[in-house]
Amino acid sequence: MDAKPHATGAVRPGGRTARTRAAVLAATREELEAGGYAGLTLEKVAERSGVHLATLYRRWRTVEGLVVDLLGEMGKTEIPIPDTGSLKDDLRALALDIAALYRQPRTRALVEGVVAAAVRSPEASTAWATVIAERNRLASRIVERAVGRGELPPGTDGIAVTSAVGAPLYYRLLVARGPVDDEIAESAAAAAYAAALSGVFTPGDSPGPP
Amino acid sequence: MDAKPHATGAVRPGGRTARTRAAVLAATREELEAGGYAGLTLEKVAERSGVHLATLYRRWRTVEGLVVDLLGEMGKTEIPIPDTGSLKDDLRALALDIAALYRQPRTRALVEGVVAAAVRSPEASTAWATVIAERNRLASRIVERAVGRGELPPGTDGIAVTSAVGAPLYYRLLVARGPVDDEIAESAAAAAYAAALSGVFTPGDSPGPP
Repeated sequence: MDAKPHATGAVRPGGRTARTRAAVLAATREELEAGGYAGLTLEKVAERSGVHLATLYRRWRTVEGLVVDLLGEMGKTEIPIPDTGSLKDDLRALALDIAALYRQPRTRALVEGVVAAAVRSPEASTAWATVIAERNRLASRIVERAVGRGELPPGTDGIAVTSAVGAPLYYRLLVARGPVDDEIAESAAAAAYAAALSGVFTPGDSPGPP
Repeated sequence: MDAKPHATGAVRPGGRTARTRAAVLAATREELEAGGYAGLTLEKVAERSGVHLATLYRRWRTVEGLVVDLLGEMGKTEIPIPDTGSLKDDLRALALDIAALYRQPRTRALVEGVVAAAVRSPEASTAWATVIAERNRLASRIVERAVGRGELPPGTDGIAVTSAVGAPLYYRLLVARGPVDDEIAESAAAAAYAAALSGVFTPGDSPGPP
């Protein structure tokens, strides 16, 4: 059981920070559901969450900062890192989960909005790239485990493999502008698997830093 | 030799249309070089090209329409469809040419601007998707020739293969927000090649329409 905070409000900083973030992201999600991306403002999120506007400006700076943080959190909770015991099945599960998330019109609109924001704003660009890098870092556990089982050669670049799974889905969404369906997910996973097995993501001379 | 147009200005419509488009795209490029994407307007392009503003509104509708048309034209002239006699080398040359084009900061800014516009505007989205589809259709000749040489099984989906070459480059540009360098181009080409050889892009039961 957690220690009860003092009546003066002296809670552990980590705990309060985490609770503030949870409240803000929940409010962001509710505001998006109520008014869409176009209607989102820091003021509305402050009002709904009960968090000071100054805190929002300081920690998230912009609407895009909020949405990127929300997308990162959605990725963590809704795209679990699979561990089926087989690289092929892990990549397939990962691709299908990404596709299922991005197939929802609301999530798709968020991703589109963040990509558009990243083009205009270096801050949004860095925040979005950081979320993607973190997601790829987490997912690259799949590749580490496959190397451990002897399915892939040592030195296989896990980030390259998981990026290869995601790339066709984002291409469909942002470039070809078509549906992110199970078919493209299966194809993306199978292509990344075949390429990884053939050694494309295993640099010959320089395995490079982890 | 072409028939000389009448002095009344009665030229072949195709010829005049093509000349108008060439003048407008050249002016668009010059305006972009002078003032960047943010400063581009149909008025400026009309003035520089000597083409009536009404014509620009009718044919291109928006700045994004112009830029998408320009990108399509740049793709056609600057990304020639390679024919080296080997699928592996063709895909590599294609990927390196796309990367070389998108590595130029000016072109990168155009692509980013168009993707951001496609998110906001259904018209820009359709125009952009059409340009990409046309480019993939042209490039899929690479796959047809490889099937003809017996390098790939009949029924291999050429659009899927060329999309697989492009996807990691757009992912790098729009999602990971990193440099579109030769390394990612080589990796994208090698991965698409390995996946195509392994039959990922050859639907088993339904080869589907061409």
